[in-house]
Amino acid sequence: MNSKPNAIVAQSGGPTAVINSSACGVIQEAMKSGKTGQVIGATNGILGVLKEELFDISAEKSETIEALKQTPAAAIGSCRHKLKSLEDSKADFERILDVFKAHNIRYFFYAGGNDSMDTADKVNKLAADAGYELVCMGIPKTVDNDLAFTDHCPGYPSVAKYVATCAMEAGRDTEALYTTDTCTILEVMGRNAGWIAAATGLAARCPEDAPHLVYMPEAAFSFDKLVGDVKEVLKELGRVFIVAGEGLKDKDGNYVTADTGTFSKDSFGHVQLGGVADMLKVVIEKEVGIKTRFNKLGTNQRSAMHFASLTDINEAYMCGQTAVRCAMEGENGKMVTLVREKGPEYKCTTGLAELRDVANGEKKVPAEYINDKGNHITDAMRDYVRPLVQGEAPITIDKDGLPVFMRFERKPLEKKLAKYM
Amino acid sequence: MNSKPNAIVAQSGGPTAVINSSACGVIQEAMKSGKTGQVIGATNGILGVLKEELFDISAEKSETIEALKQTPAAAIGSCRHKLKSLEDSKADFERILDVFKAHNIRYFFYAGGNDSMDTADKVNKLAADAGYELVCMGIPKTVDNDLAFTDHCPGYPSVAKYVATCAMEAGRDTEALYTTDTCTILEVMGRNAGWIAAATGLAARCPEDAPHLVYMPEAAFSFDKLVGDVKEVLKELGRVFIVAGEGLKDKDGNYVTADTGTFSKDSFGHVQLGGVADMLKVVIEKEVGIKTRFNKLGTNQRSAMHFASLTDINEAYMCGQTAVRCAMEGENGKMVTLVREKGPEYKCTTGLAELRDVANGEKKVPAEYINDKGNHITDAMRDYVRPLVQGEAPITIDKDGLPVFMRFERKPLEKKLAKYM
Repeated sequence: MNSKPNAIVAQSGGPTAVINSSACGVIQEAMKSGKTGQVIGATNGILGVLKEELFDISAEKSETIEALKQTPAAAIGSCRHKLKSLEDSKADFERILDVFKAHNIRYFFYAGGNDSMDTADKVNKLAADAGYELVCMGIPKTVDNDLAFTDHCPGYPSVAKYVATCAMEAGRDTEALYTTDTCTILEVMGRNAGWIAAATGLAARCPEDAPHLVYMPEAAFSFDKLVGDVKEVLKELGRVFIVAGEGLKDKDGNYVTADTGTFSKDSFGHVQLGGVADMLKVVIEKEVGIKTRFNKLGTNQRSAMHFASLTDINEAYMCGQTAVRCAMEGENGKMVTLVREKGPEYKCTTGLAELRDVANGEKKVPAEYINDKGNHITDAMRDYVRPLVQGEAPITIDKDGLPVFMRFERKPLEKKLAKYM
Repeated sequence: MNSKPNAIVAQSGGPTAVINSSACGVIQEAMKSGKTGQVIGATNGILGVLKEELFDISAEKSETIEALKQTPAAAIGSCRHKLKSLEDSKADFERILDVFKAHNIRYFFYAGGNDSMDTADKVNKLAADAGYELVCMGIPKTVDNDLAFTDHCPGYPSVAKYVATCAMEAGRDTEALYTTDTCTILEVMGRNAGWIAAATGLAARCPEDAPHLVYMPEAAFSFDKLVGDVKEVLKELGRVFIVAGEGLKDKDGNYVTADTGTFSKDSFGHVQLGGVADMLKVVIEKEVGIKTRFNKLGTNQRSAMHFASLTDINEAYMCGQTAVRCAMEGENGKMVTLVREKGPEYKCTTGLAELRDVANGEKKVPAEYINDKGNHITDAMRDYVRPLVQGEAPITIDKDGLPVFMRFERKPLEKKLAKYM
């Protein structure tokens, strides 16, 4: 048994194309530092900690660890288990600390969004109160790009590059077949923030280019407005390509469509309209009278490793690496941020933000990135997103003509505590 | 005016990633042959011929023509206008011939599926009856891969490579987040033939790999079977990734679902299918009780130039080129086919089939490519599709970090006939 303190790395929430790059940065930097014993993976995020389902990442082959950079989703395992306040989730927080103590874990690297930064912050407080030496560092991750204090979030540039390309490609499809298939809707993720929808606007370089209309949750949406917008584009081009963020809201802030998780009572017939694209399609076909189809990329947009942004891969790695370096230099209770340097050339460095501040922040698409009509982006948005989507991530292709992704061997750590949950 | 006979090239039906490569093969070969005057493009397929909306492709820049190989969809323009029998669509057929005569068009190169081959065949017959010298050659095109007499159809290998990759990627997403998002359905195209769904099976190299279940229209589907299959995979892996072809049918051959919207039939009279994934989701959530989400790639699967198969691009080009060469050598009334040579190494050459035979044929996924349970593919299918998805199409990326696609300048030909339609 190594007497050096151990480090744990965990992934949380919806996967991205590059969260594994961040993990790779943490793992390689921690192993290189010589200051940690084992680098431990928490199977399925904080659930793995609670259940003491841990494995020795530092025992994995170095090629496996390196291949994290080419593998989408969350190779260590993620979850959506949300911890509440220290009072309401007291048992969970104490269990986390117990598991850390049992495995001599003194470094906690947590990649996730607001909720994860909140969890890391609370674990940190509890450890301090208990007099247990622990360093908690957050690594930003969310395709939604809605974390405050960072210029952008790793994961976002890759989804941005992919959805903009998808808009270009499906836009050409509509352009080719507009005499029958006149309108296409591309539904993209983003329940509260329209960053992903906004990114597709980059694809529109001239009036002919898709998307012609981009709807984001930040701009009040109405079906009357939609019908008017569609008719206007139709008059000009004879076709319409629309991008819709899944969380479109009316002027009062209510979602225009119900959550997709429920379904109607009648057993084998009519599925309740859930998706925003589905609803837009019905309205356009009825009110404008043109055939409308929709594409819903779903989880394929956040896992599209085959066309990920190289800038994103590199920055995600840098975030993981920086989290370890800062931890070793005495920082604690911080999330690594991405800082866009001033100047004509894009240059991105890192900074730090307090975990508790990040936990309570939310960054939406600002008004100056949305056009006056609320149906497309401005040049300011283009300038924001353009540098992020530069470069294509290298991928290795196997004999089947498909990308190669890694999996861990997952040598489990022996459990030292009683069962929990 | 050039006194040499002119050639016309037209695209029909649903676009693909490589139909423009076929057009490029036709255009470059025709221009090189020295035997044709203008190479004319029919704007929006046969509609462009009927409306006499034609443009001079041979006047386009050579870079524009070369860039067809990197541009998805149908750059000349496509349509779904279906001509019926020579009797029922007599006026249309005669109009086509009138337009050909007016522009001294003696070569007709038509890229499309069964319906287009049927149209080309009938135009050819009418010309022969009228004593008008005309050569009609078909070029296979369909992502559905359901044309008879050809080993596979240009367009299919690219969609196969893309959807298999999408299954891998979204499969990793489900694998990472299975503790809440336990089941994912990927809906793919394929109205009557399950070739696209079947291609995703290539991604499953070990039991952990997605997709775990692949449903094709060729295997009788039932919701009881689905529920049983899902429960079995769930027991083994704790998660399920399903690929569903849009045209799933029950044992009596009835579609499991049909879109009930306003435009439920396309202009060819085909039922427009939608919502198969939606319906499967409802059943799984209700009967198995696990959260289920779905991705519907829609037109993005057939236009995914950014990860198209290089083999496909090259073969599509070869089909266009061969159509011209054969026409110049005296062939007529034929469609170019792709022939897979016997032997351990994949080698693909071309052959010819009678247009009228192709028009009436349909190739479904054969029984030996589907497993006994009717819920996945066999190694025979893997061996069939593997060579097709080899190589990645080169793409040019611009300053915005996005692919570069071409557009024609479209110098219109002067109309010589009265208005029609």
